[in-house]
Order: sequence, then structure tokens, then C-alpha cells
Amino acid sequence: MMNFDDLYNQYLTQFNDYVIKSIDCSAFNGRESEGFYKIMESITYSLTNGGKRIRPILLLEACRVCSGDPNDALPLALAVEMIHTYSLIHDDLPCMDNDDLRRGKPSNHIVYGFDGALLAGDALQPLAFETVVKSDLKSEIKLRALEILADAAGPCGMVAGQVMDLDNEEKYVGVDDIKKTDFLKTGKMIIASGLIGAACARADKIKTEALEVYCRNIGLAFQVVDDILDVTGDESKLGKPTGSDFEKGKATYVSLLGIDEARKFAKSLTFDAVKSLAIFGDEAWFLEELASKLLYRES
Amino acid sequence: MMNFDDLYNQYLTQFNDYVIKSIDCSAFNGRESEGFYKIMESITYSLTNGGKRIRPILLLEACRVCSGDPNDALPLALAVEMIHTYSLIHDDLPCMDNDDLRRGKPSNHIVYGFDGALLAGDALQPLAFETVVKSDLKSEIKLRALEILADAAGPCGMVAGQVMDLDNEEKYVGVDDIKKTDFLKTGKMIIASGLIGAACARADKIKTEALEVYCRNIGLAFQVVDDILDVTGDESKLGKPTGSDFEKGKATYVSLLGIDEARKFAKSLTFDAVKSLAIFGDEAWFLEELASKLLYRES
Repeated sequence: MMNFDDLYNQYLTQFNDYVIKSIDCSAFNGRESEGFYKIMESITYSLTNGGKRIRPILLLEACRVCSGDPNDALPLALAVEMIHTYSLIHDDLPCMDNDDLRRGKPSNHIVYGFDGALLAGDALQPLAFETVVKSDLKSEIKLRALEILADAAGPCGMVAGQVMDLDNEEKYVGVDDIKKTDFLKTGKMIIASGLIGAACARADKIKTEALEVYCRNIGLAFQVVDDILDVTGDESKLGKPTGSDFEKGKATYVSLLGIDEARKFAKSLTFDAVKSLAIFGDEAWFLEELASKLLYRES
Repeated sequence: MMNFDDLYNQYLTQFNDYVIKSIDCSAFNGRESEGFYKIMESITYSLTNGGKRIRPILLLEACRVCSGDPNDALPLALAVEMIHTYSLIHDDLPCMDNDDLRRGKPSNHIVYGFDGALLAGDALQPLAFETVVKSDLKSEIKLRALEILADAAGPCGMVAGQVMDLDNEEKYVGVDDIKKTDFLKTGKMIIASGLIGAACARADKIKTEALEVYCRNIGLAFQVVDDILDVTGDESKLGKPTGSDFEKGKATYVSLLGIDEARKFAKSLTFDAVKSLAIFGDEAWFLEELASKLLYRES
């Protein structure tokens, strides 16, 4: 039987190969232009810049655990990663978080300029939706995936969270405020990954809801661990400087709860995530281990 | 029988009412948050900021002229206008065209800040796709509309044109260069309006292609007239200062062809547009007059 690293790496290779193939300029037969080549260079830079690929792998495995074929779900996984990548490019811009480094490499706007980064993000959004529409999936699956993706990425999801995150910097916030913000800013796209994977496998309501609870909990745990690593992490492993939240005077789970309570909170969220998988029985082994790897990660 | 202004104003009222209803926060039952209300205020500001509504009206009329019901096409028209509005918000940003005025009112970023404008644009894109997905149209029409919209808005369309427009400022360009740029930057979304309207009416290939030729020609004529108005126009009617292209040292149809040749060019494009409508017979009266109104407009 496969172990966790085997399946994780299999998904990772499969997905990364699919990314390269899909954004190869020859895949856009006849629709190229000078502007196209330039924007695709900027898009490729950010879309192939490593990363754990948590959302796409979650989506592929959600499909598998619901008895679907992860190969069918590859375009959906790519669409989710495209939306995620655009959000990172725009988040790093000087008018937002103003980060020069992303995964140990210069941010998109450092390489391609403010306008190049803005437009790469702007182009990734329709490209994500196009990737779903042009896939070979059944119409009903495409439309369900598009609905989930648009909800998670739009004013009811990620963008609302980004607005609240910026507002939080300017007022007193409590744990409930950052939980609400994180649910929208990062949680909804992680939940979308689980829901879209389930939709691709035509999963029933019970399985779909189990995956939703799982994703909501690991999504929040991920943010709590992020805050912990910003205090205790190793810069060389993280690929970015630690202490940045503190420097920005940002309220975090650690600043509000203390490091021990924050750790307990992340553990209890991970426990709830794993508990929600009961309905899948032994088949849930990968998702169980994923939750635990994310809890104990060092980067 | 209705005259041009009657039908135009009927479309305009119908569309503007539909916009208000669709972006009313109560239409998002249960998905609201603090961040949502804030971003919707910024979105509403730009989406209800007047404008000729050429793309939605073109889409509704393309549907009608192909024997479809324009009422069915309203969500599609809104989606196109949402993409157009996001592009205006991002275009006006300081890192792009840096325009403080839009239709005689302060640009979005002047009112809501750089981050507010960036995020309003970012949120309008998924909202546009969601508007199509959640409509009551048949699945095949939704998917076709989504495909056309994503192509026109993405790296093979509008964004590529925007990249080329910025590049054009820094090199010697000829008429063919700006034609190519305009085709991508504004032409593709205008063509998308015609194509989506035709798709909504399940028009055949011949009618669809006729509308494509019509839209391509009026789209380009529109840009040529824009350049002419930047030299000869009345600031109070335009709602923006004239001479801005010249000030920016931008190559335009007027700077390259001279004013008389530019006028001739716009007329010949309008003539070609009207000629392509022959297949629709008398039914084409509104589109014929629209082409001519756009040619002789003063704002």
C-alpha cells in the first residue's frame, strides 16, 4: 500500500506536470499576441513558483475519497490554484501587504513591475474560469465547480476577507474577528477545494458536508500554525523572515491567546477535522495524515 | 413603431433596474459579512456611475435581432458590464493610466483608496461569472457565454491589450500596432457582447458571424472616434479633460493619420459594420442607427 509521501508526491508531480502543459503557449492555438506572451511569462513565474499545492492536492484527494477519478479533477485543481496564485500576486503588491519575497523568491511585482503584477493577477481570474469551462467534464459538474469557485473568490469570500484583514490593522480586534476574517480570506478557498473535489465525484450530501467540515477546520488550523511559525519558525525553512506580524503590529492568534493556547487551539481544530472524516472509514487515511502534517509543519 | 431613442432608453432603464436589483445586498442571502458590505459599496459606486452601457445594450439587441428574448439576456449583459467596470477601475489606478476622473466623477480609487479600488475590481470578476452561472438560462447557453467572456477578459483578450497599450507608450508605434492593441483591449469585449447575445438566442453560424463583423468594426470605430474627441471634443460634454493623449505623448489614430484621415477611417469602419447586417434585413434598423450614433457622438 502507498504511504502518505508517495501519494502526496504522486499528486504533486501529476499536478505540476498538468500546470506546465496547460499554460504552455501552444495550448492557446491562434489566440496569442505580443501582450499574451508577456503576460503568460509573468503568470508562469508565479504559477510555477513551488508551494505546497495544498488546495489542488486537497481537491484531487477529496475526489478520490468520494470514489471519483482524480485525473478528471485536474482542470478543477488548476482553476483553484490559479485563483490562489492571483490572490498572492495582488496581496504582495505595495498597496496591500507590500511583500518583496514569496517562497524565498522575489515577488511578482519585483520582477514584472506593479502593472505587470496587477495584470497577471487580473488575467489569472478569467483563465481559471476558462480552465473549468474548457475541461472535458459534464456540464453539471462544470457549472457546480464554477459556482463554488466564484462564491469563494468573490465579494462573499476571499475578497471580503482581504478587506477585513486590512481593516483589522486599524482597530482593536479579538480572536473572533480574526477567525471570521480567516474563514473568508483563506478558509473559503480551502473549503471550495474540498467541495469541488466532492462535486467532481458526484458525492452525496453527507460526504460533501463531511469534507466541508474537514476543510473548514484544517483551513483555520493552517492560519493558527502560520501565526505560530511567524514567532517560532526557522527563516531558512520558511523562505521568509519571521516576526513580520509583530513588526506590523498585527493581532494574531499568538498575540491574543499566547503561544501555548494557540498550539492547543490548532490541535483541537485538527482533531475536529479528523473526526469529521469518520464516514469515509479507512479510506480517509491520507486526509487524516494531511491534517496532522499541516499541524506539525515547519514551513 | 419604436424609434431608436425609445428602444435605447427602454434597454437602458431595463438594464439599470436589473443592475440595482442584482447588486442589492439582500440578493446575497446569508453570504454577507462586514467585508462584503464594504466592497459592495465600492462596486456599486462604479457600476451605477452612468455610462452609455454600450456593451449590455449591444448584447440585448444582438439577442433580439436573432429572435431571442432580451429579458433572458439581462444576466449576461450584467456580467459583461461587470467585467468592463472592473477594467475601468483597474485602468484608472495610479500604476496604470492614473486617471482621477471617470465620467465626470472621482475615480473609484479617489473615493475608496488604492486597496479598495484594487479589491473592488478583483471582486467584480468572480461576481460576473457567478451572475452567468446563477442565471435561469439553459446550461449550454451559460457555458458558451462563460467561454466567450473568459476568452475576451483574459490573457487572450483585454489583459493582453492592456499590456500592449502600456508597452506602446515606450516605443514607436504605427496604425497597425494600435489597431491590434485596440482589437484586444476594447474590441474583444465588444465582440463578446454580440456573440453572447447571439448565443442567448441560439443564433445560427451566419447570423453569429455577421454580428461578430459588425461588433469588430464598431468597436474599432469607437476607438478612432475617441481619439478624435480627445482633440476636438467639448470637455463639459465628455466629462473629462481633452488633449490627454497628446499630453501623455500617446500615439493615436489622429496623431498618426491626421484628423481628416481619422474621420474617413471611422466612417469606412461604420460603413463596413452596417454592411455586415444585410442578413437581418429591416430588423437591423437599431444596430444600423447605433453604429451611426456612435460615429457622430459628442461624448
